[in-house]
Amino acid sequence: MPKLWNETIEAHRREVRDAILDGTASLAAEHGPLSVTMSQIAEKAGIGRATLYKYFPDVEAILHAWHAREIAGHLARLTEVLDSAEGPATRLESVLEAYALITHESHSHQDTDLGAFLHRDNGDHLAHAHQHLHHMVQHLLTDAAQAGNVRDDIPPNELTRYCLSALAAARTLPSEAAVRRLVTVTLAGVRPPQH
Amino acid sequence: MPKLWNETIEAHRREVRDAILDGTASLAAEHGPLSVTMSQIAEKAGIGRATLYKYFPDVEAILHAWHAREIAGHLARLTEVLDSAEGPATRLESVLEAYALITHESHSHQDTDLGAFLHRDNGDHLAHAHQHLHHMVQHLLTDAAQAGNVRDDIPPNELTRYCLSALAAARTLPSEAAVRRLVTVTLAGVRPPQH
Repeated sequence: MPKLWNETIEAHRREVRDAILDGTASLAAEHGPLSVTMSQIAEKAGIGRATLYKYFPDVEAILHAWHAREIAGHLARLTEVLDSAEGPATRLESVLEAYALITHESHSHQDTDLGAFLHRDNGDHLAHAHQHLHHMVQHLLTDAAQAGNVRDDIPPNELTRYCLSALAAARTLPSEAAVRRLVTVTLAGVRPPQH
Repeated sequence: MPKLWNETIEAHRREVRDAILDGTASLAAEHGPLSVTMSQIAEKAGIGRATLYKYFPDVEAILHAWHAREIAGHLARLTEVLDSAEGPATRLESVLEAYALITHESHSHQDTDLGAFLHRDNGDHLAHAHQHLHHMVQHLLTDAAQAGNVRDDIPPNELTRYCLSALAAARTLPSEAAVRRLVTVTLAGVRPPQH
């Protein structure tokens, strides 16, 4: 088969997969993850049940795949922000702000049945993503400390825990403006102390 | 009956109750909360099973009573710290440090089966205690802002969420020295910005 034909099939498969994940996430958010059926998902995605079963064995597998796609998307967004910012200070600020905004946006499903379900069953996946995030922020803090923008009297590992813990408050804040103020305060904490 | 006699009985009842709670907590930490029996608890507390049932109907009720006593103890300790410190800045620092140390100390049972059990079933109680803590810290931040020790360009409610969220990192820190550094960084975040 010519290469283009394979690529077309691959693109089609990805589209179907995305339609399944999107449909399931919206059904789960609406009715609760435990009451969604494979038939509802097939209908929502505009495919037959037989086709759906060629992609996923059950609802649980779909929810996990959706969650994994979400997390991968968040990490990709942070990496994009990281790559497009110039200089250690700006890079640190941009990534922490992007992380806080992501945390703020995804709070809506974190406090629901869906959130509880995903966190219980997808713990390893989340821990891995969090570790990735921790490394990214620790690297940024180390660079910024070397450039004199961040205090160097406290281990970067501890500053990283502080930053990520502080920014978790973005989940409970009512507006993006409040999230940006949280980022300002959090960053003020890591600046070199004034003598 | 003379008053002293009533007081003696009351003191005795409290001692027995404390012995039951202490014994249950240590058994639960050792064997897991779901495998502790009323017989084991009676033996550990040095009382008969019949006496134990006069105090509590089941293991679950004892674990909840123990947890409530822990939380009340923590709040009492914070109030004590608050009352013995002088001036808004010192008061804020002392209370945040005490809170961070409590968070650090109680991490040991928060990540266990016992912690999961208590957090699941005692959610309302915890939420109430957290609200109390939130009010206390918000009050301290407001006073300190009026005295010029804390920035007044961000609502105290948001600064409170920031502080408590940041200090939650104390749970994962390896030493008291690291916890004190976390408090330093967190407080640096709320100071009036340097122009």
